[in-house]
Amino acid sequence: MGEGGRDYDVIVIGGGAGGVSAAMRAARLKMKVLLVESGHLGGLCMNRGCVPFTHFMTASGILGDLDLGKEMGIKVEVLSKDFNILMARHKELLGYLGQGVNGMLRKSGVEIIMAKGSLEGKATVAVEGKRVRAKNVILATGARWDERGISSLPKEFIANTDHLLDMNEIPGRVLLLGKSPWGIEIAQFLRRFGSEVALAIPEKSLLSSESRTISSRLSKALKKSGVVIYNRAQATGIKKVRGGLSVSVSSEKGEAALEVDIVISVDRTSSLEGLGLETVGLDSNVPFIRVNEKLETGAEGVYAIGDLTGLPGRHYSHVASSQGIIAAENASGKSLFFNPRTAPRVLFAKPQVACVGLTPKEATEAGYDVVTGTAPLSMNPMGMILSQQEGAVEVVAEKRYGEVLGIHIIGAHASEMAGACSMAIQLEATLNDIDMAVFPHPTLSESIAEAARECLEQIG
Amino acid sequence: MGEGGRDYDVIVIGGGAGGVSAAMRAARLKMKVLLVESGHLGGLCMNRGCVPFTHFMTASGILGDLDLGKEMGIKVEVLSKDFNILMARHKELLGYLGQGVNGMLRKSGVEIIMAKGSLEGKATVAVEGKRVRAKNVILATGARWDERGISSLPKEFIANTDHLLDMNEIPGRVLLLGKSPWGIEIAQFLRRFGSEVALAIPEKSLLSSESRTISSRLSKALKKSGVVIYNRAQATGIKKVRGGLSVSVSSEKGEAALEVDIVISVDRTSSLEGLGLETVGLDSNVPFIRVNEKLETGAEGVYAIGDLTGLPGRHYSHVASSQGIIAAENASGKSLFFNPRTAPRVLFAKPQVACVGLTPKEATEAGYDVVTGTAPLSMNPMGMILSQQEGAVEVVAEKRYGEVLGIHIIGAHASEMAGACSMAIQLEATLNDIDMAVFPHPTLSESIAEAARECLEQIG
Repeated sequence: MGEGGRDYDVIVIGGGAGGVSAAMRAARLKMKVLLVESGHLGGLCMNRGCVPFTHFMTASGILGDLDLGKEMGIKVEVLSKDFNILMARHKELLGYLGQGVNGMLRKSGVEIIMAKGSLEGKATVAVEGKRVRAKNVILATGARWDERGISSLPKEFIANTDHLLDMNEIPGRVLLLGKSPWGIEIAQFLRRFGSEVALAIPEKSLLSSESRTISSRLSKALKKSGVVIYNRAQATGIKKVRGGLSVSVSSEKGEAALEVDIVISVDRTSSLEGLGLETVGLDSNVPFIRVNEKLETGAEGVYAIGDLTGLPGRHYSHVASSQGIIAAENASGKSLFFNPRTAPRVLFAKPQVACVGLTPKEATEAGYDVVTGTAPLSMNPMGMILSQQEGAVEVVAEKRYGEVLGIHIIGAHASEMAGACSMAIQLEATLNDIDMAVFPHPTLSESIAEAARECLEQIG
Repeated sequence: MGEGGRDYDVIVIGGGAGGVSAAMRAARLKMKVLLVESGHLGGLCMNRGCVPFTHFMTASGILGDLDLGKEMGIKVEVLSKDFNILMARHKELLGYLGQGVNGMLRKSGVEIIMAKGSLEGKATVAVEGKRVRAKNVILATGARWDERGISSLPKEFIANTDHLLDMNEIPGRVLLLGKSPWGIEIAQFLRRFGSEVALAIPEKSLLSSESRTISSRLSKALKKSGVVIYNRAQATGIKKVRGGLSVSVSSEKGEAALEVDIVISVDRTSSLEGLGLETVGLDSNVPFIRVNEKLETGAEGVYAIGDLTGLPGRHYSHVASSQGIIAAENASGKSLFFNPRTAPRVLFAKPQVACVGLTPKEATEAGYDVVTGTAPLSMNPMGMILSQQEGAVEVVAEKRYGEVLGIHIIGAHASEMAGACSMAIQLEATLNDIDMAVFPHPTLSESIAEAARECLEQIG
């Protein structure tokens, strides 16, 4: 029993990317920590999300690089694409990662209960029929499949992305339904492994909330890879036909009847059910939990992090894990703020996308006097080497001090460049700072400096 | 004729990476600029250095990725590796890049004379038999082949790396002679394209001036790729034998007689000859030109940048181009400093290497109370996906304020991560800043934060 009748300093509900990170940090800060997880440690990201799909995208990327290889005189014949070997490797990876997470948590002294936890009034969590008390509770139950967009359709004909992790072979014809970005990676992977793929999204374009530079270049690249895209689309009916399913899709192209073998819904939403939010005076009838910059929920001693706290399309496991660190630090008495402008919005497609901070539109709406500079990768020496015709870097800044407000990248290795962008915005870098930074030559990241210089030229 | 009897505000001697960058910036600052180049615009880097060899390394990397592909169920047969196609693509790239540089310079209003330029007293440059005057001269003649290490050997049997850009087929057996890092990329590329390769370096290990973490992991990886390495080595004789050359190599392995088809010397040194340094009171009998932080040489109005200003092993075109910007800004009356700690030292091998700032040894010697944290990529989820067993990130910091002094990376995409490292050091980031930065998941760059956290744990 801890101090003041409490069993723990911190109880974390949910053992995904956010919860594990929060528990690890709390333990490192010498707090007594309980982690409660009802499914698998590592959560959706590690078990059924980012890790397996980035693994798939890496395989897909190697196949894509063969085109570049051919331009370079490397002629190969693909003898086979064995999905079972890829899945076996995935399972092996998952085994290592699971052991790793478990080992790290136990080594740090975090207690773990594999069961469902829920709030039961102030400072109290119900788990396995018992009531456990703690000074702080960090909610981190993440996201779950969202069936609202397909509620009018017969459920028996619709799978979610988990299905892809259990299949033995690549489906012949696939329709992916739901908001980007989630379906884009899967569409490209399946296409590269041999499926015919259609992607039906409700938005007006892929990544429609990103800047036009990113969105239009991505659409072009995805079409080139052979994925058929339906914008402003909705599936209005599904029926079984000989040899598959017939799906009625209404989109800006009009009405279409698509014959496919499988329909996969990719939408997700915050996982709030049964968390007992109402027992601490929080509204449970909301799409996600609102938190302040310190990740406090409004109920005393209750923090929320990760997919619980934001709209879909902004669900990223690295946001969850960063927020986990901040919530744990704040639970220990510190006062750290999470700055959403530093969070990269990343797509592991080919080309990759990494957007950090404000788009030109968002910056203008926020009242800044905005300048935007763009450096196409087709003008970058490494971009030429890697045939990055569609790639670009866009820098958004404000004119008075030259403070960098956003950096948006589409092209190879964008995800590995995002760290520089996040750090630039976190450390309040100016255009002059980026002009003076030394990016190695030849790299794609040099275009970050070039785009900043484009801004500087316009400011004069 | 410019102000005060001067023809130009700035004359730049040398049109490589550094000179072009200096001329472009000077023109943007509304100065009247003359650029003098005796060979090809773009210099060694673009024409015979970084660009062609990174192009080769990209091809070599695609071949290397086939091993990873195989682990992922992608079975391919390499039908051919056509070096002539690769070279044709290189020449096409070079054509675009040359046009690009030329176009950019002319559009900026830079005048260009394709001839040799040399100092002829204060504020004066001799070119094409004429004397031209300018307020500032920026020396940027770069590096040239260094034959001192092979002076005792018969020259007719030794080629330099230019030879590789003119050959029609990959040689069977190659000996590369000279200091790392330059030969490492070439060794790996030739090996991957089918050569038997030996690399004889004078140092005690590859990249011996870098931290042990980097040096030892790189040696291991290079040996694995089938390159035979001779440390503390010197070629003591070469003679023609039936079917090739026999080279006597003395190294820490003892004496060896290597039978090869070609010997390639990779050493380079600053290109100071005929620059007329003595006419402005500078010593021309030195290995490189000493400059202060503003890149001033000590002679009034004479700046020097790039390979001219540093020891081989620290010759990087991105250093030259950054220094070009700073020299031009200073010539316009600003007072900007070049901070060598922000300059990435990069190797485009597989694994890549990017080191920024101080090694643990250098930091200790500089008087800091040093803490070092290492995050192996074998523990990083993306590292597992990409089979980065040899990869690691090392962060070096000082204990009092947690200021980051160095970040050293070995692994895939290290060159694209170097921007974040350079910026962290430039903006004086602390370990806490890096702990709070949001690196996307899953990426290798997450290990930068993990290594910083290793440091924080040790500080307590």
